[in-house]
Amino acid sequence: MEVSAVLLIGVDGGGTHSRLILSDETGQILATGEGGGINFNAIGMEQARANLFDAAEALLGSQNARLSDCSLLSVGSSALDAPAGEALTAEFCGSRFAPERCLMDSDAAVSLLAAARGEAGILLIAGTGSMGAAIDARGNRYVGGGWGYLLGDSGSGFDIGRRALLAAAEAEEGGAPTLLRALFLRRFELNSVRALLPVLYGPDFHPADLAAFAPVADCAAEKGDAVATEILDTAAAASARLCAFLYQQSGAEHVYVYGGVFEHSHRYNAAFLNALNELGLGHLHVSPPLLPPEAGALLAAAHRLGLAPAAFLSKLEQSIEIMRNKAKSKENAR
Amino acid sequence: MEVSAVLLIGVDGGGTHSRLILSDETGQILATGEGGGINFNAIGMEQARANLFDAAEALLGSQNARLSDCSLLSVGSSALDAPAGEALTAEFCGSRFAPERCLMDSDAAVSLLAAARGEAGILLIAGTGSMGAAIDARGNRYVGGGWGYLLGDSGSGFDIGRRALLAAAEAEEGGAPTLLRALFLRRFELNSVRALLPVLYGPDFHPADLAAFAPVADCAAEKGDAVATEILDTAAAASARLCAFLYQQSGAEHVYVYGGVFEHSHRYNAAFLNALNELGLGHLHVSPPLLPPEAGALLAAAHRLGLAPAAFLSKLEQSIEIMRNKAKSKENAR
Repeated sequence: MEVSAVLLIGVDGGGTHSRLILSDETGQILATGEGGGINFNAIGMEQARANLFDAAEALLGSQNARLSDCSLLSVGSSALDAPAGEALTAEFCGSRFAPERCLMDSDAAVSLLAAARGEAGILLIAGTGSMGAAIDARGNRYVGGGWGYLLGDSGSGFDIGRRALLAAAEAEEGGAPTLLRALFLRRFELNSVRALLPVLYGPDFHPADLAAFAPVADCAAEKGDAVATEILDTAAAASARLCAFLYQQSGAEHVYVYGGVFEHSHRYNAAFLNALNELGLGHLHVSPPLLPPEAGALLAAAHRLGLAPAAFLSKLEQSIEIMRNKAKSKENAR
Repeated sequence: MEVSAVLLIGVDGGGTHSRLILSDETGQILATGEGGGINFNAIGMEQARANLFDAAEALLGSQNARLSDCSLLSVGSSALDAPAGEALTAEFCGSRFAPERCLMDSDAAVSLLAAARGEAGILLIAGTGSMGAAIDARGNRYVGGGWGYLLGDSGSGFDIGRRALLAAAEAEEGGAPTLLRALFLRRFELNSVRALLPVLYGPDFHPADLAAFAPVADCAAEKGDAVATEILDTAAAASARLCAFLYQQSGAEHVYVYGGVFEHSHRYNAAFLNALNELGLGHLHVSPPLLPPEAGALLAAAHRLGLAPAAFLSKLEQSIEIMRNKAKSKENAR
């Protein structure tokens, strides 16, 4: 196989996991890969650097290329909330890569670029945490929410899981009866929610783990539980308010919703659309992101190199479509 | 000075601080003292043991007595939520003290004993965290709330501080305008609440630190801010619901309220009484605890030794009264 003259890598880099995508200058995807977390705030600069460049090296190796053959490495990192400056980029690259060929921005920025394919748009994330970002027609960026778990992370899986467990606890002490209590007790094989406290405040439990309880709320809501339904509706309304704020800032009418809560909770999605309607925003177009975040990092790289955006995007979408179909037929063949 | 034949020590042992009180068998207070934290879950058994017995030794030393002269050491510990068993007591005492002369119970239990002077009563705590406990006329105990910061610790300073900061953040993004925002920005000398995020999630900030923001809500509420008033009212209503649950369990009609929020927030207290009324509990008697927690530990010790409870209590109250008056006249003399 001949090595392409231009090799671009796009990275969606999270706290525990990264996704990489390699393309040529036309937007043709050559390979995809995965790696460890690269959030240097969480795991330290050295480990983050090793995780990223080891994964990039492996990805390039699959095409008989080396790290030094990479024309531009574009990274969306959960450690950032704005583009990284020169000093930080140089520190991150260390001796592994030439910093002038490395672009680093926030994970939200590349996700938004991918979601809206470089156009104006609003991105709402409701996964473990929640946050929102928007870009207007002139390329101005806005952020909203993302206040983190200490302030409750309204609308997130953490928010839903936390409220669900609290409702179960309160049901034990004179609060509204709810199916949530029985579901939690069965899950933990306990006789009381109070007996869960040593687990909750034990050394192995992290605040973010509360997000894993969000599906319990879904399960109860699907069975008609009023308390669980109220929790999901309240969380969805918070996301709708965040959307309204970002719409007011950006004027963008396309809303891309992302993350486990949007992906899995029917009730949450329905309540979100309902709340948007009530806010007079029924005309907004709501859909999943058009492209995965790592493709947004590639778009940023193509933009930096001055590649024709429409042609690059079109080829990129084509090859993502082909990749997805291949994955699907593989799955069907099983 | 002659050393009394019976020496009892009562301890209120918290996470960072302990208070000790030494009495003879009549309930006459001989000395009081302070020490480091003794929550062995937080600081480890060895450190907790050293902190307690060093402080007890110093207290006894002030009366020319030694640790081995102590007839009964009674400890209320924030590390416990029930009386400690023999094994745990022996582990805690190590080689410093004879475990058969050591009583260990939860801080809530001794606080309740002190608050209600050994009678039936309900204790509500709203400090950094919140919790409730009750004891009925037959000595049965009940607990409620105390779900900790992960579940929001309803009604606590943490709850109030967290909601106040969140309201300030939301005011920045289309939420209801509130004086809270200006107060936080002035306090931190920042231009936006968002700029506070690196502090909030920095290594030096602990979730419990949010409780320190509760007075900001008070300040705003006193100036008529509707958002802050609503936050305090919601928190106070949570404490009232906890009270209703414990009343339903125990039938106790005396409610003792304790902790920084009850001590300092006028609005919270007013809203609490109002919420009790609305729950049909206007007949309950609400007051601060009658005695400090360490005196409750002494009462437990006297009970264990079979000392005449009424006489012991009466002498104990007398000498606490004398101590308080001395402290007051000292303060006035300054």
